[in-house]
Amino acid sequence: MDYASSAEPNPSSIHEAGSEAKKKLKKARKITAGILGAREEEIIFTSGGTESNNLAVQGAVLAFSKKMPHIVTTNIEHPSVLETADMLKKRKLAEVSVVPAEADGRIDPKKVKKAIKKNTVLVSVMYANNEIGTVEPIREIAKEIRHWRKREKSLLPYFHTDAVQAANYLDLNVERLGVDMMTVSGAKISGAGRIGVLFKRKSTPLSPVFGGGGQEHGLRPGTENLFEISKFAKALESARGRSKKEAKRIAGLRDYFLRGIAKSAKDILGKDVIVNGSIENRLPNNLNVTFPNMPSDLMVIELSERGVMVSEKSACKSGDKKASHVIRAIRKAEGNPPLVKRGGGLPSAHTAGAANMGSLRFSFGPGVKKGEVDYAFKAVSEVLKKLKKWYN
Amino acid sequence: MDYASSAEPNPSSIHEAGSEAKKKLKKARKITAGILGAREEEIIFTSGGTESNNLAVQGAVLAFSKKMPHIVTTNIEHPSVLETADMLKKRKLAEVSVVPAEADGRIDPKKVKKAIKKNTVLVSVMYANNEIGTVEPIREIAKEIRHWRKREKSLLPYFHTDAVQAANYLDLNVERLGVDMMTVSGAKISGAGRIGVLFKRKSTPLSPVFGGGGQEHGLRPGTENLFEISKFAKALESARGRSKKEAKRIAGLRDYFLRGIAKSAKDILGKDVIVNGSIENRLPNNLNVTFPNMPSDLMVIELSERGVMVSEKSACKSGDKKASHVIRAIRKAEGNPPLVKRGGGLPSAHTAGAANMGSLRFSFGPGVKKGEVDYAFKAVSEVLKKLKKWYN
Repeated sequence: MDYASSAEPNPSSIHEAGSEAKKKLKKARKITAGILGAREEEIIFTSGGTESNNLAVQGAVLAFSKKMPHIVTTNIEHPSVLETADMLKKRKLAEVSVVPAEADGRIDPKKVKKAIKKNTVLVSVMYANNEIGTVEPIREIAKEIRHWRKREKSLLPYFHTDAVQAANYLDLNVERLGVDMMTVSGAKISGAGRIGVLFKRKSTPLSPVFGGGGQEHGLRPGTENLFEISKFAKALESARGRSKKEAKRIAGLRDYFLRGIAKSAKDILGKDVIVNGSIENRLPNNLNVTFPNMPSDLMVIELSERGVMVSEKSACKSGDKKASHVIRAIRKAEGNPPLVKRGGGLPSAHTAGAANMGSLRFSFGPGVKKGEVDYAFKAVSEVLKKLKKWYN
Repeated sequence: MDYASSAEPNPSSIHEAGSEAKKKLKKARKITAGILGAREEEIIFTSGGTESNNLAVQGAVLAFSKKMPHIVTTNIEHPSVLETADMLKKRKLAEVSVVPAEADGRIDPKKVKKAIKKNTVLVSVMYANNEIGTVEPIREIAKEIRHWRKREKSLLPYFHTDAVQAANYLDLNVERLGVDMMTVSGAKISGAGRIGVLFKRKSTPLSPVFGGGGQEHGLRPGTENLFEISKFAKALESARGRSKKEAKRIAGLRDYFLRGIAKSAKDILGKDVIVNGSIENRLPNNLNVTFPNMPSDLMVIELSERGVMVSEKSACKSGDKKASHVIRAIRKAEGNPPLVKRGGGLPSAHTAGAANMGSLRFSFGPGVKKGEVDYAFKAVSEVLKKLKKWYN
């Protein structure tokens, strides 16, 4: 009977529909584990990247509650890592060290190693940055951590990476990367929906954040979102099937677009466009730039009116008025042009807040065409011309 | 541009698609708030009932971190409340008092009041039980809590109810119920999908469980699952539109079914069927029974083969081998028949575990027809006849 439940059967039930659901869940877990080079029991499904990152960071700390645990992370992590670490610190549950990024957005593995202490239980460094697309040297950091462990004859610290932005284009094999925990999510995979994954090596201790049922190996209670999980596994599989050629093609178009807007900036504004983050170690689909003196919030609105959707700093933080912590981090590092302060004599409604440190993120999706890139380029030039008389 | 993101826009972005998304999110929040008699800013969207319950229980404790906070709850709560309270106790973050249910599954408001202490920050009692369908006296408990607050001149304790099972048939108005926090989810509403809601009165202090972005008034970071949230609000609205007549009709069919299986039990087994939980204070669509000596796990399999899906104890706990904590709780209360222990001489594969205390939950969905109930009744009789020679 059970008509009252939702149409989707519960994988933990023992009746027939429950068994079917269990099989589907197992299949999705197998596909995901295969792509990550992990075992099925090492895959934990969650509600998204934010939850996976919280589970990794909080769970690692909660698993070592006897002494004061120490976390090493970086100043360009996603808020779900950085603010979670900060929350644990405020609650006096952990000590936290934050390694600053270099001017090009890269994290220096030696600096990570230097930050590790005897009570460090977790190092968390993202695989690719969500705002500036910088790809971090995960293997090299893993190597430094292994050296430390060997020298100290310790199993600690464990190494977690947030790979949400890496899912489409980078190697996700946890053995080759040398990570103990890894966050993946459906957010950036087309057709994948709102699903999070936390890979956790079987031997890595972790405490659950939620109390409740015994689902997901006791680490994530709540009835599994089977429909979304199945969709996620399929979408991840087809995203992984995409060729390296396509990644190269997209990077080529991205660089073509950059050359165009760089010339426009020079011609229209008489200034160089600032590229935020390394151009070599970068996701093929990401471009993040600052047009000197141009208010990024107005540029977003003007571009949006022309059908070009860009993001101004991380969407996860755009509810508040503070500028991007990532842009701020790399600007603080040596060797970068300083932040451009908006001058006087401007309409006051636009002088406050994010615009002072504004940055624009252009994302290039799978299958993007040259014509679309040309169109976007033209829109940028138009907008620069329009805003120039007010702000340059 | 932003082709790389998922098809669904992010409500926190400022470009045009983001504004559209924001409007949709606001609309869903308005509908939900309207049904609950709450303000829009009092609605927090989460990934499900488990997360909402965790946020209420953990969040209330974390908001009072200076002294040792105390929680009052009951022994028939969903694991996401009961095990969360236990987890906080084990982590030395809270003291916990568990009020036992009466023989009919009801919670005595006087016993709740008696359990409240000076350091009690939260009382959490479910609205309707997920296994035995018992409707708890939420208004009366709220009244006792108000008396306590008045006498002590305190704002504490706050009152939370898990209303996941109540969404289809019971009054959800938080003012009339007198609750400060309430969990609702899409799990039991047809077409609603995996969305959780936590209503939190504006004046009730709560700390987030997750660190991350500023979404959901800073209490639940992570990009909002807009598609599911919109679906949820619509489904909740149409579930609420269902008439009281339909609830009565379903309760009538449920009672008709019970009379039938009670007669079968008497005729075939020579024994009375045991109804678990009050029949008066009960969700119209729930029936939970024990057939003396009959192994409930085998009954589930046999009924499933006949197309009748029933649940044996809470699905959220059916991964483990222990019997239902709810059935155990009401059997322990005075005035109930004791638990039936399976005798010797039976196939050993079926003698262990849950079957000893087995219970079967029949759920009657909206629109259920008399013919379907008759069919289910016949299936039960057949199964009783088949299993009788082995187990009676």
